[in-house]
Amino acid sequence: MARSSRMKLWPHCFPCFDDDDRSGNRFTAACNFSDDLLPSLGATAQQPPKLRKYLVSPYDPRYKVWETFLIILVVYSAWICPLEFAFLRYLPSAPFVMDDVVNGFFAVDIMLTFFVPFVDKKSYHLVNDPKKIAIRYLSSWFLFDVCSTVPFHSISLLFNKHEHDLGFKFLNVLRLWRLRRVSSLFARLEKDIRFNYAVIRCTKLISVTLFAIHCAGCINYLIADRYPDPRRTWIGAVMPNFREDGLWIRYVTAMYWSITTLTTTGYGDLHAENAREMLFGICYMLFNLWLTSYLIGNMTNLVVHSTSRTRDFRDMVQSASEFAARNQLPQQIEEQMLNHICLRYKTEGLKQQEMLDILPRAMRASISHCLFFRVVQGAYLFKGVSSRFIQQLVTEMQAEYFSPRENIILQNDSPSDLYLLVSGAVDILVLLDGAEQVYGRSADGELLGEIGVLCNKPQPFTCRTTKLSQILRISRSKLLGIIQENREDGNIIRSNLQQVDI
Amino acid sequence: MARSSRMKLWPHCFPCFDDDDRSGNRFTAACNFSDDLLPSLGATAQQPPKLRKYLVSPYDPRYKVWETFLIILVVYSAWICPLEFAFLRYLPSAPFVMDDVVNGFFAVDIMLTFFVPFVDKKSYHLVNDPKKIAIRYLSSWFLFDVCSTVPFHSISLLFNKHEHDLGFKFLNVLRLWRLRRVSSLFARLEKDIRFNYAVIRCTKLISVTLFAIHCAGCINYLIADRYPDPRRTWIGAVMPNFREDGLWIRYVTAMYWSITTLTTTGYGDLHAENAREMLFGICYMLFNLWLTSYLIGNMTNLVVHSTSRTRDFRDMVQSASEFAARNQLPQQIEEQMLNHICLRYKTEGLKQQEMLDILPRAMRASISHCLFFRVVQGAYLFKGVSSRFIQQLVTEMQAEYFSPRENIILQNDSPSDLYLLVSGAVDILVLLDGAEQVYGRSADGELLGEIGVLCNKPQPFTCRTTKLSQILRISRSKLLGIIQENREDGNIIRSNLQQVDI
Amino acid sequence: MARSSRMKLWPHCFPCFDDDDRSGNRFTAACNFSDDLLPSLGATAQQPPKLRKYLVSPYDPRYKVWETFLIILVVYSAWICPLEFAFLRYLPSAPFVMDDVVNGFFAVDIMLTFFVPFVDKKSYHLVNDPKKIAIRYLSSWFLFDVCSTVPFHSISLLFNKHEHDLGFKFLNVLRLWRLRRVSSLFARLEKDIRFNYAVIRCTKLISVTLFAIHCAGCINYLIADRYPDPRRTWIGAVMPNFREDGLWIRYVTAMYWSITTLTTTGYGDLHAENAREMLFGICYMLFNLWLTSYLIGNMTNLVVHSTSRTRDFRDMVQSASEFAARNQLPQQIEEQMLNHICLRYKTEGLKQQEMLDILPRAMRASISHCLFFRVVQGAYLFKGVSSRFIQQLVTEMQAEYFSPRENIILQNDSPSDLYLLVSGAVDILVLLDGAEQVYGRSADGELLGEIGVLCNKPQPFTCRTTKLSQILRISRSKLLGIIQENREDGNIIRSNLQQVDI
Amino acid sequence: MARSSRMKLWPHCFPCFDDDDRSGNRFTAACNFSDDLLPSLGATAQQPPKLRKYLVSPYDPRYKVWETFLIILVVYSAWICPLEFAFLRYLPSAPFVMDDVVNGFFAVDIMLTFFVPFVDKKSYHLVNDPKKIAIRYLSSWFLFDVCSTVPFHSISLLFNKHEHDLGFKFLNVLRLWRLRRVSSLFARLEKDIRFNYAVIRCTKLISVTLFAIHCAGCINYLIADRYPDPRRTWIGAVMPNFREDGLWIRYVTAMYWSITTLTTTGYGDLHAENAREMLFGICYMLFNLWLTSYLIGNMTNLVVHSTSRTRDFRDMVQSASEFAARNQLPQQIEEQMLNHICLRYKTEGLKQQEMLDILPRAMRASISHCLFFRVVQGAYLFKGVSSRFIQQLVTEMQAEYFSPRENIILQNDSPSDLYLLVSGAVDILVLLDGAEQVYGRSADGELLGEIGVLCNKPQPFTCRTTKLSQILRISRSKLLGIIQENREDGNIIRSNLQQVDI
Repeated sequence: MARSSRMKLWPHCFPCFDDDDRSGNRFTAACNFSDDLLPSLGATAQQPPKLRKYLVSPYDPRYKVWETFLIILVVYSAWICPLEFAFLRYLPSAPFVMDDVVNGFFAVDIMLTFFVPFVDKKSYHLVNDPKKIAIRYLSSWFLFDVCSTVPFHSISLLFNKHEHDLGFKFLNVLRLWRLRRVSSLFARLEKDIRFNYAVIRCTKLISVTLFAIHCAGCINYLIADRYPDPRRTWIGAVMPNFREDGLWIRYVTAMYWSITTLTTTGYGDLHAENAREMLFGICYMLFNLWLTSYLIGNMTNLVVHSTSRTRDFRDMVQSASEFAARNQLPQQIEEQMLNHICLRYKTEGLKQQEMLDILPRAMRASISHCLFFRVVQGAYLFKGVSSRFIQQLVTEMQAEYFSPRENIILQNDSPSDLYLLVSGAVDILVLLDGAEQVYGRSADGELLGEIGVLCNKPQPFTCRTTKLSQILRISRSKLLGIIQENREDGNIIRSNLQQVDI
Repeated sequence: MARSSRMKLWPHCFPCFDDDDRSGNRFTAACNFSDDLLPSLGATAQQPPKLRKYLVSPYDPRYKVWETFLIILVVYSAWICPLEFAFLRYLPSAPFVMDDVVNGFFAVDIMLTFFVPFVDKKSYHLVNDPKKIAIRYLSSWFLFDVCSTVPFHSISLLFNKHEHDLGFKFLNVLRLWRLRRVSSLFARLEKDIRFNYAVIRCTKLISVTLFAIHCAGCINYLIADRYPDPRRTWIGAVMPNFREDGLWIRYVTAMYWSITTLTTTGYGDLHAENAREMLFGICYMLFNLWLTSYLIGNMTNLVVHSTSRTRDFRDMVQSASEFAARNQLPQQIEEQMLNHICLRYKTEGLKQQEMLDILPRAMRASISHCLFFRVVQGAYLFKGVSSRFIQQLVTEMQAEYFSPRENIILQNDSPSDLYLLVSGAVDILVLLDGAEQVYGRSADGELLGEIGVLCNKPQPFTCRTTKLSQILRISRSKLLGIIQENREDGNIIRSNLQQVDI
Repeated sequence: MARSSRMKLWPHCFPCFDDDDRSGNRFTAACNFSDDLLPSLGATAQQPPKLRKYLVSPYDPRYKVWETFLIILVVYSAWICPLEFAFLRYLPSAPFVMDDVVNGFFAVDIMLTFFVPFVDKKSYHLVNDPKKIAIRYLSSWFLFDVCSTVPFHSISLLFNKHEHDLGFKFLNVLRLWRLRRVSSLFARLEKDIRFNYAVIRCTKLISVTLFAIHCAGCINYLIADRYPDPRRTWIGAVMPNFREDGLWIRYVTAMYWSITTLTTTGYGDLHAENAREMLFGICYMLFNLWLTSYLIGNMTNLVVHSTSRTRDFRDMVQSASEFAARNQLPQQIEEQMLNHICLRYKTEGLKQQEMLDILPRAMRASISHCLFFRVVQGAYLFKGVSSRFIQQLVTEMQAEYFSPRENIILQNDSPSDLYLLVSGAVDILVLLDGAEQVYGRSADGELLGEIGVLCNKPQPFTCRTTKLSQILRISRSKLLGIIQENREDGNIIRSNLQQVDI
Repeated sequence: MARSSRMKLWPHCFPCFDDDDRSGNRFTAACNFSDDLLPSLGATAQQPPKLRKYLVSPYDPRYKVWETFLIILVVYSAWICPLEFAFLRYLPSAPFVMDDVVNGFFAVDIMLTFFVPFVDKKSYHLVNDPKKIAIRYLSSWFLFDVCSTVPFHSISLLFNKHEHDLGFKFLNVLRLWRLRRVSSLFARLEKDIRFNYAVIRCTKLISVTLFAIHCAGCINYLIADRYPDPRRTWIGAVMPNFREDGLWIRYVTAMYWSITTLTTTGYGDLHAENAREMLFGICYMLFNLWLTSYLIGNMTNLVVHSTSRTRDFRDMVQSASEFAARNQLPQQIEEQMLNHICLRYKTEGLKQQEMLDILPRAMRASISHCLFFRVVQGAYLFKGVSSRFIQQLVTEMQAEYFSPRENIILQNDSPSDLYLLVSGAVDILVLLDGAEQVYGRSADGELLGEIGVLCNKPQPFTCRTTKLSQILRISRSKLLGIIQENREDGNIIRSNLQQVDI
């Protein structure tokens, strides 16, 4: 077969996998976790086949632990980095030792990255070749990672022991580059079906907000700290000797100013006193305008999404009520309508039908088989028919719930469907001289309307539920079509039907 | 029938009910009120069958009154609890007596809960067994309920008469646990179709907002009250001897600060003066950021929902106008289009068709029978046919409204539908030599286009409404299908038609 | 015909009209203006048939002018009423004279209302009976209208010439009852298709905002004005002798405080100084929280609605680009796809298809007839056929636009549609030895693919547009169905086709 | 053919083009860039045919550069104009020289506009006639353009050298008229599919916000500058000698006040001190209320739109999980469902199907031909059949992806589709004595289910993927329809099938 020619036709159309059968299980896990080495939305059934000895699999649980540990270090860095920059001017070097340790871990990660295969974006293959891994890393984030790891503070101490240079401190800010790890973590988690979307989204927004507050507070303090006249600064105006105050009180004050500005509360007890602070305030407030809009936009999105189910249900119920009122339907029918709609929203999700529609035929057949096969097999009409017939039957069947006192079949109606009572209880009624009389009662597993459907007569009875009932439904045309294709089974059904009638 | 086997197949698929027929009426009520003992969206047709003597039915109206009374007490608790905590430091024990009475009621409720059956989440059965009731309660909220009911204040008085310990006061805050009752009440009301969704939602949001303001004001006052230097507190800075002021003025001031901060107005006349207050302010403002976004999100949701109908109508009308303008349709046709769209939005709800589609066939047949049977029976063409025939006919019929001066049938058009004029007036026009001449006039109950449909000829007349008319429509193919299945009725119709023609 | 019985069946189902034919024109006007005496969404084709002599038609243009004049007076009242209440304490009675004149007009309107027929909500009939008009008015708004019209100020002057009693002033506030007129005006305008929805909605929101600011400012000033210690008021703290200042400066200051609070700017230069002002501030800020959310919700609604068209277009184009890129479609096909989508969004509105679908068959036939009849008549294939045949044909036709260089028919494709080139230019190409050769060129009014469709052969040619072209399309099955029902016309077409082939 | 009569019928229905074939390429470019001389949404395939010698084509790249240059000048004007108005009171005339240069460029553009053809809104023709160009420009924006270009400042210097009149300055504000160019630029960019919608929209909002801040700051400074008592102004209250301060410090202070007010932070360190400032503050805050709502509305719109894909995917997955849990489906089927949904969202865009549906038939056939022709040709069943047959076949085919371990065909199921394995691997399984046994394995290019479909027998095998597979699907009814219309090809297929069976 001209495989090569076809490969030219669809080279990007779908990923090509040459790996073995075990990938199926792997795939599910990957789909659930959607690793950052994998594309976010499933479709990556891959078992790294023959990892070279010294390479580290990106799916190795120990590697996952290492990544989680680095995320924690990133969060620590994000908090300590602006703090050092602004507040820790004359402090001893204790925190900087901690800093160097953290830098060490990230340096190890840089080394490690050269030994972790990556997934090619086009073929979805795991690339094992160390050269390719190195080229890819060196040509992408390597330089940034190295810059954000160099311990500039310790280097500065080597050259000049007592200098607290702003330039070197500024270089420390490069460590915020590490935040891209958190950013990509959230991007992954948002698409991970194991976590609640709203929770992930809110956590992300809160993180961004807290980081913005922290950074803005620190920078604003730095501006005040460096200003020549301490009394003409936002903090010096209310705390004249603020430099002698404890770190805690200064940090809280800076945070207080920051959040007061971010939320646009703006008490005014702390406010810009000089042009530098005003300029920073202008930038920060512009950013806040954007951030606040973004927060509100996201919250609106979540609220609209979370209430859509209730809203749809209410719209439907209101539509039924209005329809009944406008057309003066009897109270009884209105109640039946409302009950049915309530029941439907209870038993079916919002997108169930849409979900079933996109599944391929074989999968829907499997589901039907798994759900209905044994019940249909038990019905008297299908006693003795081939399992092939029953399988074709269940594929076309649909389950429905009926609330109590609801009509399943109306007397004299044309027979359009065959019903199978899976559970519940149904009264069989006959209209005699204008009054309904109970003719019989159907229990679980019995068929309803089979005479009408098979003999093509108007329904002789009215069938009404007395309890909440589950019913399988198959349309007459589909049933007759299946019977026509399976002649012998049709004969068995006919004889089954005659035995009952007699 | 192998019922047991089937039960294994669908144990969770649907609730099983073994109760009697009377449940139908009960069900409706339950669906409407959606009690908190029942799942929120209907589907719970249940009459507690044989309640043991000493058990209290959760559907008992007296129990409902008791629950409502408790809700009121909860609201009182939610208001008094932070107030006591913050303001009532040196007050006499009068309010605490009231407190003990309230606690007593809740203690009674704890007792009572052991005698109220509950609904099993899986089977939707009411569980009568006192042991099971007790086990369920003891293993869930019992401990919390007890903790929130113990009168810690009175106990503290027993041990040490004059101490106003913060620890004991803090224990009083446990009473806020009772708020879960209000929370679950709102969750239920939102899904209750008897109440307006927007009203419930707004009430909930206002309640949350007021409670947040109340709590924040009280806590902020407590912080100031406990601060060693009264002049360095938010309230002391403007009211130096605030502790001597009346409760009312202090309470209003605290609330004023609270709402000023929540709405981010932030006048700045009252603001944090020390680190403790700043810390609390930071927390409160972060919470406000979330609360404000949530309020706006909900309001947007409600606005979007409430205007969707008007918006859809306007989109449709604009689309019609644009279409007419782009294609230079005659003024007359444009007017007809706009009138028809106006009429349609007037007579049909936004989701009417969708609602009808999800109803089962028998219910739709009932509705059609109830609405159309007598009109169709009266038509000359269906004189003498069996009621079975008419019933099958009405099931397939659809009602439509036509505004005045609208064409129902165009001369020479192929006959696709049979129309029955239910009410209104229709002119029958013939195009002779390019000019329309009035040939006749149809009154209520007459058929339109029956010659075209039954003889398969192009429509010989144009039918145009002269008044707002309601018309029943059945497609030709469905009509012929029904006639084919009922031969004798078909012959009657043929003879009816011939009698008129002659 | 048993009309009475049917009337019992649908008493509320549709409005009954007994008026004459002229109502058609009236209806259109009513639909456009949607008077407040009429239901908002069309469906009210009514000419007041025989108005009694002394009654005033609500459709009388003079009555409309009177109503508009009253709206202006209402706006004046809404502005002057809080102003009088708060600011005009020691002023001479000049504005009160103006007030009495305004009251006079409203008194006249109360009289007049007894002579204006109203539309019954159920039957949509105009009720002429003066008794019924009086009963309806007396039992609804009469009392409120009278209370809001009594000149309390003048009455108070009668009793006690120099008293400026708060109580009497408060009674003046009753005049705000008149605002319901403005409220109902906006409700009507929102559904009026002659006005832009966004503009009406914005105007409404701005009016509410301005009125809220005005009222709050006035009330806050009143509280300060009545406070015993002027220096302990919000205005007295910054303007110690504010009572001696001019009305203008006091009014501007009050408005400035009001808007500063509403927008939550809260500079803090003016702020509550005593418990009364704090209480009012609390209420106002709570209201603002709601109002701001409501404004944002409405604005979001308008923004989402106004950008939906552009967003849909962009989604579609992006989807086409992604599809082309993923499947590596040739550049040429991608361009054709993008051009076609651009063209489609240009030529068709967002809801055109949906709008056409809800129109009744006869109206769609009229539109098709009006648009396509003459073009189809001119095609060589339909020379000499009956106009009945062409009419049936055009009803099933659909217009489509093709951008230049787009294929209409592909060679060898199965013939599914017949095309009629309305305008533009089409090249007819044949694929010979792998190269396309121009076989012919079609001009306006020529048919494409008729040989394939009528002889049921695969398309012999490729047809490609060279200019922007409009094409009418009819599916093969529908065309053959119409031909089958009109045998003679079918023969004419066959001979027409043969003449060309030879 | 009666072309003229048809032209009367659809004069506005579509643009008429008389230009040559080369327009196809032109059209694409126009659609992509959507020039402001062209309608925004494509549909303008136009090559200016015979431009008169002295006219400048609006498509000339040099003209585009000139337009871009003018946009930059407009931005400069928008910034300098309010600045001059407010701050540059006693400055030397240096900036005014720059101003005159800018004015000069705009004067040139006014001249130029008389030589640039425009596109007629109705016919989409480029109008070449200089008279018509002049009439159109003179009757539209000419006067505004001239007014915004006259160098009022220089003129004022001619008359009175030392006067800095407010009146003349006010005339300079007319230059803001030029901003309409930026406004129309954004309107165009928003519809340009080459740019990201969110980016353009955000840029527009940021521009509007910055301009509002700049203008408000300048106007507020102007009011303070002109106020008689400098100490009673918002800036004079904190900077008593503000007029002696540098331009930079005054400008930053004004911007700081402006942004503090816009974001409703309102520290209160700078606030209105007199009625004039209060009035301006009232107006500015009202505008801010609108602007903030508008920003939030737009942000919400963008957030909702950008997250819709992820939300839809999550809804679908959650629906599948709920369905599986409610019906207790086996773990294996649930995994298959989730994998399939993941795969589908990965391989298909959100609107792919909708996009394909609106394409005309010939275009869809081209795409299918381009994607599937060679694969289908290679299948053993279609060896030797005419290419016409294969072309008709591929038009009806649909591509689907199956994740590993998913069933394509279930044994005993009725044959509804024929599958062609494009790539991947499929195991063919037979159920023997309740256990599945591997019967064979299908490689790329092989057919699945052909025996069932062509012989109309229940599927004899189960086909299950072992890798990610791409499969072409054609429904049995369409396949049989095509075979019936091509008898010879049907015979070839039959013999192909028999050869394999033997």
